[in-house]
Amino acid sequence: MLFHVRMDVTIPPELDPDVRTRLVAEERERALDLQRSGVWPQLWRIVGKYSNISIFDVTTGDELHTLLSSLPLFPYMTIEVTALATHPSKLMP
Amino acid sequence: MLFHVRMDVTIPPELDPDVRTRLVAEERERALDLQRSGVWPQLWRIVGKYSNISIFDVTTGDELHTLLSSLPLFPYMTIEVTALATHPSKLMP
Amino acid sequence: MLFHVRMDVTIPPELDPDVRTRLVAEERERALDLQRSGVWPQLWRIVGKYSNISIFDVTTGDELHTLLSSLPLFPYMTIEVTALATHPSKLMP
Amino acid sequence: MLFHVRMDVTIPPELDPDVRTRLVAEERERALDLQRSGVWPQLWRIVGKYSNISIFDVTTGDELHTLLSSLPLFPYMTIEVTALATHPSKLMP
Amino acid sequence: MLFHVRMDVTIPPELDPDVRTRLVAEERERALDLQRSGVWPQLWRIVGKYSNISIFDVTTGDELHTLLSSLPLFPYMTIEVTALATHPSKLMP
Amino acid sequence: MLFHVRMDVTIPPELDPDVRTRLVAEERERALDLQRSGVWPQLWRIVGKYSNISIFDVTTGDELHTLLSSLPLFPYMTIEVTALATHPSKLMP
Amino acid sequence: MLFHVRMDVTIPPELDPDVRTRLVAEERERALDLQRSGVWPQLWRIVGKYSNISIFDVTTGDELHTLLSSLPLFPYMTIEVTALATHPSKLMP
Amino acid sequence: MLFHVRMDVTIPPELDPDVRTRLVAEERERALDLQRSGVWPQLWRIVGKYSNISIFDVTTGDELHTLLSSLPLFPYMTIEVTALATHPSKLMP
Amino acid sequence: MLFHVRMDVTIPPELDPDVRTRLVAEERERALDLQRSGVWPQLWRIVGKYSNISIFDVTTGDELHTLLSSLPLFPYMTIEVTALATHPSKLMP
Amino acid sequence: MLFHVRMDVTIPPELDPDVRTRLVAEERERALDLQRSGVWPQLWRIVGKYSNISIFDVTTGDELHTLLSSLPLFPYMTIEVTALATHPSKLMP
Repeated sequence: MLFHVRMDVTIPPELDPDVRTRLVAEERERALDLQRSGVWPQLWRIVGKYSNISIFDVTTGDELHTLLSSLPLFPYMTIEVTALATHPSKLMP
Repeated sequence: MLFHVRMDVTIPPELDPDVRTRLVAEERERALDLQRSGVWPQLWRIVGKYSNISIFDVTTGDELHTLLSSLPLFPYMTIEVTALATHPSKLMP
Repeated sequence: MLFHVRMDVTIPPELDPDVRTRLVAEERERALDLQRSGVWPQLWRIVGKYSNISIFDVTTGDELHTLLSSLPLFPYMTIEVTALATHPSKLMP
Repeated sequence: MLFHVRMDVTIPPELDPDVRTRLVAEERERALDLQRSGVWPQLWRIVGKYSNISIFDVTTGDELHTLLSSLPLFPYMTIEVTALATHPSKLMP
Repeated sequence: MLFHVRMDVTIPPELDPDVRTRLVAEERERALDLQRSGVWPQLWRIVGKYSNISIFDVTTGDELHTLLSSLPLFPYMTIEVTALATHPSKLMP
Repeated sequence: MLFHVRMDVTIPPELDPDVRTRLVAEERERALDLQRSGVWPQLWRIVGKYSNISIFDVTTGDELHTLLSSLPLFPYMTIEVTALATHPSKLMP
Repeated sequence: MLFHVRMDVTIPPELDPDVRTRLVAEERERALDLQRSGVWPQLWRIVGKYSNISIFDVTTGDELHTLLSSLPLFPYMTIEVTALATHPSKLMP
Repeated sequence: MLFHVRMDVTIPPELDPDVRTRLVAEERERALDLQRSGVWPQLWRIVGKYSNISIFDVTTGDELHTLLSSLPLFPYMTIEVTALATHPSKLMP
Repeated sequence: MLFHVRMDVTIPPELDPDVRTRLVAEERERALDLQRSGVWPQLWRIVGKYSNISIFDVTTGDELHTLLSSLPLFPYMTIEVTALATHPSKLMP
Repeated sequence: MLFHVRMDVTIPPELDPDVRTRLVAEERERALDLQRSGVWPQLWRIVGKYSNISIFDVTTGDELHTLLSSLPLFPYMTIEVTALATHPSKLMP
């Protein structure tokens, strides 16, 4: 099923710049891997914020929490998860 | 450019049931038309609410406002628009 | 998977008392049916409010939205859905 | 009587990693003990958050406050307590 | 155990004035009865509002919800319940 | 006149433990003194929080502010003051 | 003692225009009387709103609540009361 | 001086359609007049809302309140006014 | 024209006590000077908070911002400015 | 298209004063450059705050996000972006 996920990132300014650079690079790799696997089909930046809006396609809440908490920047994120359903006016291919 | 749009619908219970039925049907037709035209590429229901989360693909704010205010249920909606940008970790095909 | 669902009911005072009585009775029947079927394993009243906190056990967001929107009082409810996962400190039987 | 309790944990990033590891381990032991004793019958993780939703079964507010403030992570938690009552549509066994 | 209860009353202006007068009188009688019985030991008006702050002394959440929902103005109230415990600095007689 | 006062205490984790212990002890002494003097007739703990709800009985706003700002933990408190009046349904002895 | 009072007025559009005109005129008379008596020393309009910010000079919460609830528009107001004290940097004449 | 003004319009659905049409037309005329006079130099629609963001250039709060409350739709508006100052990084012509 | 200004002060506990003492003394001197000059006619403490409510009498937003940002504690303040107008029911001398 | 952008700046007090001075100077240069280029046609200070309200004129969300995140103070800003459209009552030259 699909979940709408918003992630707001707040990295404390006092974090070691090298650690920060490494974390951001690892986050990017992890995000690309998850997108390739099909569980993270949509990912957008919110204009003006260090935030993203994403769609995840998973089978259970356990799977989604495991994915999200595996993100290297997870300790610096505030995450809001919204369960989605098929819209009755959705154009079907 | 892409916009994230959330629409929350509140139809007053005292609305004439026939008017309501007609409005909802017209809304569905309009939504299908806009999806076919390509400006409304994503549309999901929020579980438990008479609300949707959508992605619109338009060129200007004027175009988006014209589309949204043309929806038959527009007078009964609270709409929040969020501007989106390409995410640097987005997997490109 | 499990979802935490809070429902706040606001029936307008001007609703016909007979309609109200019928709706509340139908709501109770529907709630009992869904509990018997196993999809609604927990249901509590919030003290001082016409509200409940519930746990639903469903397979998809579509299933949950179909259940919630089938409730006779759905048009008078504000519903908040929270996705749950297994807690790592949960005592397993 | 039953209480619905939500705990949101915020451990400051600058906390000594060993202290953190020890606190989390102690928290888990304490949570398991309280669940075994019967006062903490339900415990779930909120997807995407370092938070839980729990049900406590205690006799007084004093007992509940003593339990919650005995948790090793209590100084790092924001806790919201909601009093529950039996729902009139609850399916009785 | 003790609960802190805030009640905000909103009677719709269109309510029949006689019904309103009767409800307010019944509410007063009910409040006096509950105070005499010992379950409602404290009751204050909030300055500038049609609201009160109260302390209730009950044994269970079921008892408190039964009391509150028995108030004649309950359908017109928003009620917030907060569970209390003994304060460690409370002066004991 | 009576005031309803809620105090939420947030002591920063990095405060020297000895300073903290001393402040908390001094706070307790001050609270007991003020209760003995009659200006602080009610004091409860909010379950699950490092917070209290209190009733103060003072003659002026100046007197109340002087009392509150004399509390040793005042620099670590968020305080909300609500003016109270006699409730017309209050049971008089 | 002094209280800061904000009053936001919301008169429902369906109120009989004559009743509205009469209420507003009575409100004005009452406000002028209270100002003459010295208990309402300051009164300003908030730009863009049907709201005022006022200072009241009264002896007790009972006196203030009696004054506020005597205002003809009281049933249509949301009122927030804030207790004031002498500021230590206030220029004394 | 300049003020930033946001106006959110909520016309109740039960308003007579002819009255509504007339009010909206009068509002437009009044807005055009005020813009011609120079006191309302900027006016934008917020995408997706029956709202505008405006800049007003007036000499006093009295002048601004008189202008805003003269708008035919004023009774149906929620207005937020923010005082502006020259920004030190503003490019001067 | 008049502005209603609320200032909430938050001085970080780790600030050097001598710096803090000096800043507070300088703030007091500056406040007294501004009151003597007539631009700051009203100043009250909010009971229970390190906050004040003030009235400023200035000609432009630039003048008000210059005054507020000249306060020695400005970097530690959250300030909310509300534009005021003459109230139609204000008693004129 | 036009976007309304509000930027609230929070520079931590512990930031090295030289770094702060340099960042603020670089921010000013960057702001002047962007204004000269035409993408940042309006810029005002909010009275009493380290905040600005701006209008940006850009073609896409990507362009706007690139501009905003290029600001030297971007890591210390909270930014809210609102999409604008032409207002139907806007006076056209």
